[in-house]
Amino acid sequence: MSETRFDVLTIGNAIVDIIAKAEDDFLVQENIIKGAMNLIDAERAEHLYEVMGPAIEASGGSAGNTAAGIASLGGKAAFIGKVAEDHLGKVFTHDIRAIGVHFDTEFLVDAEPTARSMIFVTPDGERSMNTYLGACTRLASPDMDADVIAGSKITYFEGYLWDPPEAKAAIREAAKIAHEHERLTSISLSDPFCVDRYRDEFLDLIKGGTVDIVFANDAEAKSLYQTSDLATAINALREDSHLSVVTKGADGCVVVTREKTIEVDAFPLDELVDTTGAGDLFAAGFLHGLTSGREIDDCARLGCLAASEVIQHVGPRPQVSLKQLAEQEGL
Amino acid sequence: MSETRFDVLTIGNAIVDIIAKAEDDFLVQENIIKGAMNLIDAERAEHLYEVMGPAIEASGGSAGNTAAGIASLGGKAAFIGKVAEDHLGKVFTHDIRAIGVHFDTEFLVDAEPTARSMIFVTPDGERSMNTYLGACTRLASPDMDADVIAGSKITYFEGYLWDPPEAKAAIREAAKIAHEHERLTSISLSDPFCVDRYRDEFLDLIKGGTVDIVFANDAEAKSLYQTSDLATAINALREDSHLSVVTKGADGCVVVTREKTIEVDAFPLDELVDTTGAGDLFAAGFLHGLTSGREIDDCARLGCLAASEVIQHVGPRPQVSLKQLAEQEGL
Repeated sequence: MSETRFDVLTIGNAIVDIIAKAEDDFLVQENIIKGAMNLIDAERAEHLYEVMGPAIEASGGSAGNTAAGIASLGGKAAFIGKVAEDHLGKVFTHDIRAIGVHFDTEFLVDAEPTARSMIFVTPDGERSMNTYLGACTRLASPDMDADVIAGSKITYFEGYLWDPPEAKAAIREAAKIAHEHERLTSISLSDPFCVDRYRDEFLDLIKGGTVDIVFANDAEAKSLYQTSDLATAINALREDSHLSVVTKGADGCVVVTREKTIEVDAFPLDELVDTTGAGDLFAAGFLHGLTSGREIDDCARLGCLAASEVIQHVGPRPQVSLKQLAEQEGL
Repeated sequence: MSETRFDVLTIGNAIVDIIAKAEDDFLVQENIIKGAMNLIDAERAEHLYEVMGPAIEASGGSAGNTAAGIASLGGKAAFIGKVAEDHLGKVFTHDIRAIGVHFDTEFLVDAEPTARSMIFVTPDGERSMNTYLGACTRLASPDMDADVIAGSKITYFEGYLWDPPEAKAAIREAAKIAHEHERLTSISLSDPFCVDRYRDEFLDLIKGGTVDIVFANDAEAKSLYQTSDLATAINALREDSHLSVVTKGADGCVVVTREKTIEVDAFPLDELVDTTGAGDLFAAGFLHGLTSGREIDDCARLGCLAASEVIQHVGPRPQVSLKQLAEQEGL
């Protein structure tokens, strides 16, 4: 095994979020699937920005948020993802480095701009994402830094990476490097529609042992096994994977291993403001717990705690030190 | 009098805020005056961004925030200010138009970039601003749209406009146009250090009748009259101006006319998060009350209500409909 440099490396689409409030009617009118990640082209991005309300911009991207969460918890995190050398690319780079995440992927020059996701937050706190992938479509094998992968206890990647054309091959390579160095790998299933698009490939990754730890929310787990019954999906996950975690929003989460099922409650909220980043921060808390040697139920509690912080404000990354928050909660 | 097109026109530095949390030690270390607006050059802007924590970006600028507040309250607002034709300029333009504010000032091309203010929010919720003025330094007389000024019940501008070189002459012209059309003018004193820089000019504007309504917080009022006693400052304001309003943070505000003094309490808060925009939104509420024919104490209450919304989240502009909020409060 190589020297350990990082607790967790996350790999994903490097995105800046543009976040505005919207009514449910607006989503219907603009054909936006509520609660989902909708992929859009440059033209639709321009249109949606025109009809969008006043917004704030904040670095996002599922795996980027997870890396930021791990750093905020006091863990050593690294991130691989593609941005262009433009304003948003500089913002993304600044923010992820500023929280202490190692990020060294080469900038894309003279090609697509940095990815952005226009996120509409409805009064119920649900977010509906509209992502123009831009520079992310250029993430490829040469970006997989073997030293970083070999030096990370866990390499985690998002299912969303199956959308850009070359990333999935790169991820298979990354997983191979990780396993050659006796490291663990992990996937987030990202979105039920994403699972729909790549169900067979995701099942292959899980059953074939390319990924060791699976994160899914209840909708994604059900989509993966094409069932409307969560218990059925959980039993299937138990069969297919050594360790998986299913998040259930306000109902907390379920950790599933071959031997047992552990249910952990969600943390109480003052106010649900914006669910953006909930799953990403859950994964951050869980993986930080795992890489710092905590018991599995404390890993789940850390995940719920990190998720509870991020959904009580606008923006997909923690606004306070999660390390301090965890200490206050005795975690 | 021309046909009324707008309730309030605001004129000010068009700025995008870059907001991060910071500890008090950091401010000391970086020589940032706490609670103040610190003017910085391009080189220092680069340095501060390097040492800044992860940030969010949101359109700001004092008078821009006030215009957004008036629109959110259901008033007709216009804004004049200078941005460049770059990413931040487009963001500023999008956000202010998206909330319904008329904004038509010509973009600056091939010159300084759009202004940005790096704002550090300390754990007490206080914000310390570091502003690179960029394109704002080019705001000048040709930008003063006489039709818009003549068609606005009140033209309001920020004291900060005395920093860029040509804006103050433009503002004097704007005030002249407003008064020729029997309209009112108003100034915000912006910042106690700004008052220090331009005390004589501000007193001249007030005493000479160039401005009809004065907004100040307690520190600015005391700085204007170089006194440590707020009552002394308030008495001087009463002598010099027909109508002025002094805000006192958690202690609410004082409306001062020749005949009377009205004290209004602040609205209760769940949590003070970030004071950025407090004074700007107070002015929005007060001016909206005034231009919609409300009693003076209700104007002050609207001001306090709008301020209370903006300081309970990160970012300098309202995140909910202030009109609905006001209706809920019976205002």
